[in-house]
Amino acid sequence: MTTASAPGKIILFGEHAVVSGTTAIGGAIDLRATVRVIDEPGRVLITTEDLALQGFSFDLTAGHIHSVQAAHATRYISAVLRELDARDMRVDIKSSLPLAAGLGSSACIVVATVAAVSRHQGHSLSKKEIAEVSHRLEKTVQNGLGSPMDTALATYGGYLQIARDITPLDLPPLSMIVGYTGMPHDTRREVEKVQNLRKRYPELVDPIFQAIGAISRRSIPLIKEGNAAETGELMNINHGLLASLGVSSREMEELVYAARGAGGALGAKLTGAGGGGCMIALPGSAGLEPLLVALRQARAAAFQVTVGCEGVRLEAER
Amino acid sequence: MTTASAPGKIILFGEHAVVSGTTAIGGAIDLRATVRVIDEPGRVLITTEDLALQGFSFDLTAGHIHSVQAAHATRYISAVLRELDARDMRVDIKSSLPLAAGLGSSACIVVATVAAVSRHQGHSLSKKEIAEVSHRLEKTVQNGLGSPMDTALATYGGYLQIARDITPLDLPPLSMIVGYTGMPHDTRREVEKVQNLRKRYPELVDPIFQAIGAISRRSIPLIKEGNAAETGELMNINHGLLASLGVSSREMEELVYAARGAGGALGAKLTGAGGGGCMIALPGSAGLEPLLVALRQARAAAFQVTVGCEGVRLEAER
Repeated sequence: MTTASAPGKIILFGEHAVVSGTTAIGGAIDLRATVRVIDEPGRVLITTEDLALQGFSFDLTAGHIHSVQAAHATRYISAVLRELDARDMRVDIKSSLPLAAGLGSSACIVVATVAAVSRHQGHSLSKKEIAEVSHRLEKTVQNGLGSPMDTALATYGGYLQIARDITPLDLPPLSMIVGYTGMPHDTRREVEKVQNLRKRYPELVDPIFQAIGAISRRSIPLIKEGNAAETGELMNINHGLLASLGVSSREMEELVYAARGAGGALGAKLTGAGGGGCMIALPGSAGLEPLLVALRQARAAAFQVTVGCEGVRLEAER
Repeated sequence: MTTASAPGKIILFGEHAVVSGTTAIGGAIDLRATVRVIDEPGRVLITTEDLALQGFSFDLTAGHIHSVQAAHATRYISAVLRELDARDMRVDIKSSLPLAAGLGSSACIVVATVAAVSRHQGHSLSKKEIAEVSHRLEKTVQNGLGSPMDTALATYGGYLQIARDITPLDLPPLSMIVGYTGMPHDTRREVEKVQNLRKRYPELVDPIFQAIGAISRRSIPLIKEGNAAETGELMNINHGLLASLGVSSREMEELVYAARGAGGALGAKLTGAGGGGCMIALPGSAGLEPLLVALRQARAAAFQVTVGCEGVRLEAER
């Protein structure tokens, strides 16, 4: 039996603008997908107890499938199993990340599966190899779409600066709240919407992208020195710029203003592609509790996360 | 008896950025303040039936005053009466504009009072003179603050382009909805907030101002050719940029998304300084009715206006 886990992620600053080469900052969070591989002679079976949604099991050799969510997750896992030529094994998936919420749920399932299956087969892939294979597979399943950020964060953990290249950042852990609107989002649709807007109004969207990139760069020393007040202010500015690109929503604004108002957050913004999905908030001096309460009163699924956590790892046998 | 009226205004594009010299577009709306001057030997009396809030009367010679709102409006009217050395007259004010809502309520009272009182005294001020005197007086009452836009729109009507100079724009009338959050705003406070943000983050705020200015310039041919879809899109982008500057609010976002969603608006944005005050929405193909309903369901005072109306005028005796 071999077990590996990999973390989900949030984007702190810079989503959407990063597609055009400006800087974004992402961080791994302490919600993980865990993949366990067990010998199962003659079969290749995928099961899951919990994809933060519902359990399902899928027999790759037989071809049953039980839900749309399952079908979604299974496409990623199947792609990994095909790529690694997996045989005679059962792959159990557990994830504490909501699917299609912009928290990198598919990337961490792919990364943890690559790590667990390859190790179970006796290979020792480097993190670089895991990240590369995982990114390629995620991209294939998503028909060519997929930034390398999600799989890189699931692999390396910590914080990453993403521009033309991906560079690790040495930043301290941050305690934040994630609020989920409950509305799944479609990354491709949102990315295309923004890129379309840019084609029609380059003289407007380019300076917005530039401002977003400047926010990302400016945030790095602030996070490093623990300047939460200004980090929060930058989150607020970044959120407005994302809203100007059309990727916010009524539900999202409700959460953002609930966090900043009653929640006492120093800053709040959507995270990821938008159009549903999640927001993040940086707690103020009153701490996490009023923020969790304010977001839940605004009908969010809200939970505390630590940003900057460890990447993919093999788990000790239990 | 002499009667004059002057219109309120909305800012279509470019508020806040205009303080730093980029372009803004304002339009006069068909909500007016009407001022009637009647001989009243031995006294100078100000009365009002309705300042879109409550009636009051104020005897300048005696010094009674009945409400904070009245005190607010009276400061402007008193300044005009002192400037024009008014004697032996009663000045009746009527206004259909909510006060302190960002619709230029004080400017149109000042302009209509200047026009009515000066004509009653036998003078014939040009529009240029009315605009100049009114701007100077408004600025004095507001302790040095006050863009010339509000008094210029109240005087000239139509549409104005405001940058370093104020230029009339030849644009067709637009039918729009104004939604009032019910929260009075403090223009000075919002302007200072944005200018402060700019001092601390010039590398972020300057490109945002540039983008706002570019939106204003781009809107002119679109409004001219009646391209409502793209005009609305620019309103949405402009709104997000204003939100990034910190001048939106939970209540404002609720109205903006209600307008864009159930209201079917092609575009919606805050208008004026923000931090309360009003938003404007451009109706979609379903027309005004669903938009009024959606905004009222979101607890706004909502009303239809025509943008581009006539400026100050003397009214026929009735």
